[in-house]
Amino acid sequence: MSTFVCAHDNDFSAIAAGGIMGITIKEIAELCGVSQGTVDRALNHRPGISEKTKKKILAVASERNYRPDPVARSLARGRTMTIGVVLFDLYNRSFSQLMNAIEMSSREAGYYVHLMLTNKDPDNEKKCIEHLIHRKVDGIILFPINEGPEFDQYLRMLNIPIVTICNKVSDHWRYVGIDDRQAMKDAMDYVCRKGYERFIYVCPPLAYKGRTNIFTQEERFAGCLQGLRDNGITEQPIVIDTPAYVEALSGIDFRSAPKTAVVCSCDIYALEVMNHLKERGLRIPEDVGVIGFDNIDVLKYVAPRLTTVEYAVEQFGERAVRDIVGQIETGGSEHIPLLPYRIIAGSSI
Amino acid sequence: MSTFVCAHDNDFSAIAAGGIMGITIKEIAELCGVSQGTVDRALNHRPGISEKTKKKILAVASERNYRPDPVARSLARGRTMTIGVVLFDLYNRSFSQLMNAIEMSSREAGYYVHLMLTNKDPDNEKKCIEHLIHRKVDGIILFPINEGPEFDQYLRMLNIPIVTICNKVSDHWRYVGIDDRQAMKDAMDYVCRKGYERFIYVCPPLAYKGRTNIFTQEERFAGCLQGLRDNGITEQPIVIDTPAYVEALSGIDFRSAPKTAVVCSCDIYALEVMNHLKERGLRIPEDVGVIGFDNIDVLKYVAPRLTTVEYAVEQFGERAVRDIVGQIETGGSEHIPLLPYRIIAGSSI
Repeated sequence: MSTFVCAHDNDFSAIAAGGIMGITIKEIAELCGVSQGTVDRALNHRPGISEKTKKKILAVASERNYRPDPVARSLARGRTMTIGVVLFDLYNRSFSQLMNAIEMSSREAGYYVHLMLTNKDPDNEKKCIEHLIHRKVDGIILFPINEGPEFDQYLRMLNIPIVTICNKVSDHWRYVGIDDRQAMKDAMDYVCRKGYERFIYVCPPLAYKGRTNIFTQEERFAGCLQGLRDNGITEQPIVIDTPAYVEALSGIDFRSAPKTAVVCSCDIYALEVMNHLKERGLRIPEDVGVIGFDNIDVLKYVAPRLTTVEYAVEQFGERAVRDIVGQIETGGSEHIPLLPYRIIAGSSI
Repeated sequence: MSTFVCAHDNDFSAIAAGGIMGITIKEIAELCGVSQGTVDRALNHRPGISEKTKKKILAVASERNYRPDPVARSLARGRTMTIGVVLFDLYNRSFSQLMNAIEMSSREAGYYVHLMLTNKDPDNEKKCIEHLIHRKVDGIILFPINEGPEFDQYLRMLNIPIVTICNKVSDHWRYVGIDDRQAMKDAMDYVCRKGYERFIYVCPPLAYKGRTNIFTQEERFAGCLQGLRDNGITEQPIVIDTPAYVEALSGIDFRSAPKTAVVCSCDIYALEVMNHLKERGLRIPEDVGVIGFDNIDVLKYVAPRLTTVEYAVEQFGERAVRDIVGQIETGGSEHIPLLPYRIIAGSSI
């Protein structure tokens, strides 16, 4: 354990002095006979410097063990080495898995995170974003709850690197996610092959259509409808889009009806639905099938094993961090591919 | 929705101008014919001001709609209106519930949070704390993984408000938690009344004794031993303190043995244990009983319902925020009582 100690009001350098610093930018500049700005250009691969000078600087930096110090970097460039993260909440298990990954990836990249939770309140989201701007974060990872051209314009005016995650604002913004529409369509192919004839679609967020950003949920719903059509199901699904979805289900007969699948747009709804069905003494999948989406990690404790759509939510966090750091450090615009997904065949459908 | 927009490099005042500000400290000072420092003393109930002057200032502030502006407050007092939060990770469900509560309570109090995860790495914890000091957070909510006099001294030298949560460092530090020892003892009373004769105690963190802070886990274990003694159980429990606790269980016979209870120091272990027992075809509780601790929210989806110890982890978050804000704003030292808990009688034991 380090025996490092410091007083609260010490300045950065006093604290940084505790570490093994290697050579500084100033020392490299002196050794190479160039300005500190030129050294910074070389180390960060910015233009405005000859190849020869750059090579010399990088060689000295490497030989003399130059290690970028986050605090020094921060001071030198007007950066705070901080990434703002705006999420809905940490209750949905996939959000806490996501946040865990963002925090770990950020720290590995030398950045720290400022977490803000919107609780899905559009006004609150703007307050969160404004606070992050006040605190001069270098970039923002945003799971947006606002939507539309006005919000798009609002974000552009902030003039700060942003990557959106899970919900899209517009094609202007870099986006980390999966092809939710295709994934849900594939899930419907899977369900239809099992001979289901009647479909109930559970997605409470659909009630917020036109009021908040439900991009991902709309994509999943569109995928469901497309999948049913493609499989020759002509009857429209029963759509349950109320927070009281369990109560809504309670009025539905399953035993004497055609073979029914309850398609839930998130595992968190599917878990509640399964509890409700079990309480009614219905057998899953014999009396009614259930499918979820997200493959949250707690599913492994629940019987029957929920059939669901899996994607690596941790990968979302890693990709979002990699992208925002790229934007901050190089203005990078590497393409972000949609991430992979797969159907997990459980025993609930 | 607000139509507020701002540029990234705007200063605080340009952004704050979007809000309804009411009277400022400067204006109150002018109206009352006192210094801004005196107004600040009155508004924050600090000493060094006569009761008469204070009363006058507070009256003016109230009449003219003085509202403390977080950014202005921050600038005026050298505060950042930010609370640093140091947790292990967000994987344990109770940690994400805790973090959610901390974020919400902080925002209600006008503060924002800087989340740092240590992944239970003592060196990393110091890096996290040092980063928070660099960023000049006003106080730290700490779930400590370091322990001992050296760490205690390290924290004291930081000279910053700190509240510890779940693990204790020393009695010097304010602490939010429950009486884990008594709670586990009560749980043992409950188990013993059910006629169990053999006990297996599952607690992987015990392996880190002497290396990291496992205060809470040690308290729970002490409570278990005490509870067994008080109930006349003379045989020591089998203690499983390895990360491979499921494998360790696999060699234990349950069917032909005395009636056995597997006591798990956290629900997250109990869920894994139940999965293992079910896979072996053992009936819970007929062949073997299981009890957990924490009452994490996912238990409601798992059968049989785990018997466990419940406490309101959200209350931990609220209390910790209330305490750190008190320390920051008034240097407050209101006593923090241990929080309540209760046994949840499930059907697993």
